[in-house]
Amino acid sequence: MSYRSIREECLAANLALPKTGLVDLTFGNVSVADPKRRVFTIKPSGVDYDKLTADDMVVLDFDGNIIEGTLRPSSDTPTHRHLYLHFPGIRSVVHTHSRAAVAFAQAGCDLPCLGTTHCDYFNGAVPVTRGMTPEEVAGDYEWETGKVIVERFAGMVPLDIPAVLVRNHGPFAWGPSAAKAVETAQALEIVADMAIRTLSINPNAIPAPAHLLNKHFTRKHGPKAYYGQA
Amino acid sequence: MSYRSIREECLAANLALPKTGLVDLTFGNVSVADPKRRVFTIKPSGVDYDKLTADDMVVLDFDGNIIEGTLRPSSDTPTHRHLYLHFPGIRSVVHTHSRAAVAFAQAGCDLPCLGTTHCDYFNGAVPVTRGMTPEEVAGDYEWETGKVIVERFAGMVPLDIPAVLVRNHGPFAWGPSAAKAVETAQALEIVADMAIRTLSINPNAIPAPAHLLNKHFTRKHGPKAYYGQA
Amino acid sequence: MSYRSIREECLAANLALPKTGLVDLTFGNVSVADPKRRVFTIKPSGVDYDKLTADDMVVLDFDGNIIEGTLRPSSDTPTHRHLYLHFPGIRSVVHTHSRAAVAFAQAGCDLPCLGTTHCDYFNGAVPVTRGMTPEEVAGDYEWETGKVIVERFAGMVPLDIPAVLVRNHGPFAWGPSAAKAVETAQALEIVADMAIRTLSINPNAIPAPAHLLNKHFTRKHGPKAYYGQA
Amino acid sequence: MSYRSIREECLAANLALPKTGLVDLTFGNVSVADPKRRVFTIKPSGVDYDKLTADDMVVLDFDGNIIEGTLRPSSDTPTHRHLYLHFPGIRSVVHTHSRAAVAFAQAGCDLPCLGTTHCDYFNGAVPVTRGMTPEEVAGDYEWETGKVIVERFAGMVPLDIPAVLVRNHGPFAWGPSAAKAVETAQALEIVADMAIRTLSINPNAIPAPAHLLNKHFTRKHGPKAYYGQA
Repeated sequence: MSYRSIREECLAANLALPKTGLVDLTFGNVSVADPKRRVFTIKPSGVDYDKLTADDMVVLDFDGNIIEGTLRPSSDTPTHRHLYLHFPGIRSVVHTHSRAAVAFAQAGCDLPCLGTTHCDYFNGAVPVTRGMTPEEVAGDYEWETGKVIVERFAGMVPLDIPAVLVRNHGPFAWGPSAAKAVETAQALEIVADMAIRTLSINPNAIPAPAHLLNKHFTRKHGPKAYYGQA
Repeated sequence: MSYRSIREECLAANLALPKTGLVDLTFGNVSVADPKRRVFTIKPSGVDYDKLTADDMVVLDFDGNIIEGTLRPSSDTPTHRHLYLHFPGIRSVVHTHSRAAVAFAQAGCDLPCLGTTHCDYFNGAVPVTRGMTPEEVAGDYEWETGKVIVERFAGMVPLDIPAVLVRNHGPFAWGPSAAKAVETAQALEIVADMAIRTLSINPNAIPAPAHLLNKHFTRKHGPKAYYGQA
Repeated sequence: MSYRSIREECLAANLALPKTGLVDLTFGNVSVADPKRRVFTIKPSGVDYDKLTADDMVVLDFDGNIIEGTLRPSSDTPTHRHLYLHFPGIRSVVHTHSRAAVAFAQAGCDLPCLGTTHCDYFNGAVPVTRGMTPEEVAGDYEWETGKVIVERFAGMVPLDIPAVLVRNHGPFAWGPSAAKAVETAQALEIVADMAIRTLSINPNAIPAPAHLLNKHFTRKHGPKAYYGQA
Repeated sequence: MSYRSIREECLAANLALPKTGLVDLTFGNVSVADPKRRVFTIKPSGVDYDKLTADDMVVLDFDGNIIEGTLRPSSDTPTHRHLYLHFPGIRSVVHTHSRAAVAFAQAGCDLPCLGTTHCDYFNGAVPVTRGMTPEEVAGDYEWETGKVIVERFAGMVPLDIPAVLVRNHGPFAWGPSAAKAVETAQALEIVADMAIRTLSINPNAIPAPAHLLNKHFTRKHGPKAYYGQA
């Protein structure tokens, strides 16, 4: 088995997904890349989580060719590949249909940053993409999905806001490792759930002020971080 | 034990129901048909799930006569039978009182198709039936319930939208096997829950556009499907 | 140990409560009566569920005297006693602070009968009491709580609508046995949760029509019942 | 190991947190003080709950100096310390990001006392602090967080309302022991969840009247308490 390291990282993260409560039925997949070798590995399509093995992970190169694996890769594979090509520094992508995040995607609303739980993970609102055109959907749909994500992040730093809501679809999250990308997908669902409850109490709730947002993001991220152990 | 195959399929699906979280107390039942022999088997009425055996399943013919079994069949049996007679191609029917789907049935609203999770299972909104008349309720109530379902599906293809919401009551789902019908009942509850959250964020959320709906439904169903393994 | 039968029935029901998800912390108690002997037994006050034994159950007569037991009975004991004295035919009372039912009590709204799940247990809306006066609260508070419940049921049949919502407080349910009263408390929470979701979809949702309500209640209760086994 | 008693009390309470459902990911910490010796111990920052030991607890004096421990204390440590200095009689502080309580903090609304579940723990609404200024956030942020809490409690008795909602952040609760402070944090989340549901049924729901609030608080607390065992 080649690419053992990323296959096993990918398997562990895919198996972690159902335990997080983020995944209903089989709505979810994780990929892990080795950017230097320009390859990534991803869950096979429509296989139950309890039957997955590291050998089942499909390995593709960054041009989309299957290098190893006998199973069909996740149908979302072209979206993952597009993100690896355009978001420098990411090593893993997670896609789920977690319910509160999906609700914002279906509502067509950015997920606002309402408090410090959000600030700890995302340096601002988590954006929703525009709707896809009939041509985009009829064409190479999953590849085009990646394109509208990248379009939405024009002028933004993907690792500062490591998630997106694809309109009428659901969230993608990413990060420097599969474990961190899964944690970000969890945090996204948590803050989306908190936001729904907040807006039900006060439909006019306003986002956390910029100084609070910056403080919390930088106390966990970047050179001045002082959260966690040194 | 005759009809062993459908009895065991039926038992397994009835036992799977409580594990899905779809069922509170004993509000739920699954039936499985053998359409060629024009028989079906169903859970007995008001029996706890943890005591069910394959022998307890009641076998009836399509005319409603009990062929095998000493227990009284589910009180919803005539509804199941009516669906087998009028929806060609279905082999299993699942009835639950799952909470989010019931909420749409009680609200008297079709469950709109707001995103791709819904599109993956249902080729459009899941319809709610009209209310039943005093005559229908006073008469052969459960049989009449089947009739209002079939009436609601006039001009629709039951396997393209494999579920319904009976007004002021709850969901019925169906499919080519008991496992698939249970999965559809689960998907229905998931998308109903997502829809409630979506509408709480944005009461004016609009359904997914037709081109997205068609794309997702056909990538999972029919001759051009490319989801899952070949 | 005297009164072993009702003590053990009472213990089993109190232990069942936390497993139903109805009880947070120690907010809940069950009592069981032997009406012929004019005695009842109830959970001691503020004791953790995982330490309860049948010997801990406190036995009182219908005049409120402790007959057996060294622990202090639940502070809600006078409410239970008042219900045994005024609601003929009940053998068990359950009090919880289950969240959705409490929400209706705090909202000051009757729980409307919106569908068949509700009809299966309650022959109409579950009523909320009036608020208690300063005098009632300053006096024999728990006894007065029983009085406002009985006042609210003037002209109603307690076993047809076997639960109430005490305003700004929470639900009490009752029945012919402890197991049935606990089941009714569960059903109350389920239908309250469904009602909250229904009203969030459609704030103008209307109650199930009387003919549907009557049909479902009588198919499960009374001489024409045909639900469950004979 | 010195300070064994408070370290072990602190460890037990930190381990109890995830079991209560109050904590997602690692958003939560408990501290325990020994006020006579003017020291307290707190969870280390960003360590997974399943790896914590009593030795990992960091011990600080009331001036903020680390007395024992090799790990970095929770980043929220100055907030805890400020509360020990200003709220006499408290021995433990709990901070979580529990979702319903966070929702009120993000909505910028006091959590109103809508019923007896709330009255049993809090003698009035649980207050939300004012927003923090850019200067406060840029300065000694966590210490300033403690200051806005203490400012908000001017004229109030901390042990009568043993919790607060820091605006755009989340709840802190406190009490005479770690077990009681954790229980209060649980009760806060429960009543916040009940309040969200209550307001979704009736946006104009009014608080419980003062006489009911006083009755319930004093039946559990103070010299006239008669809840629980003597």
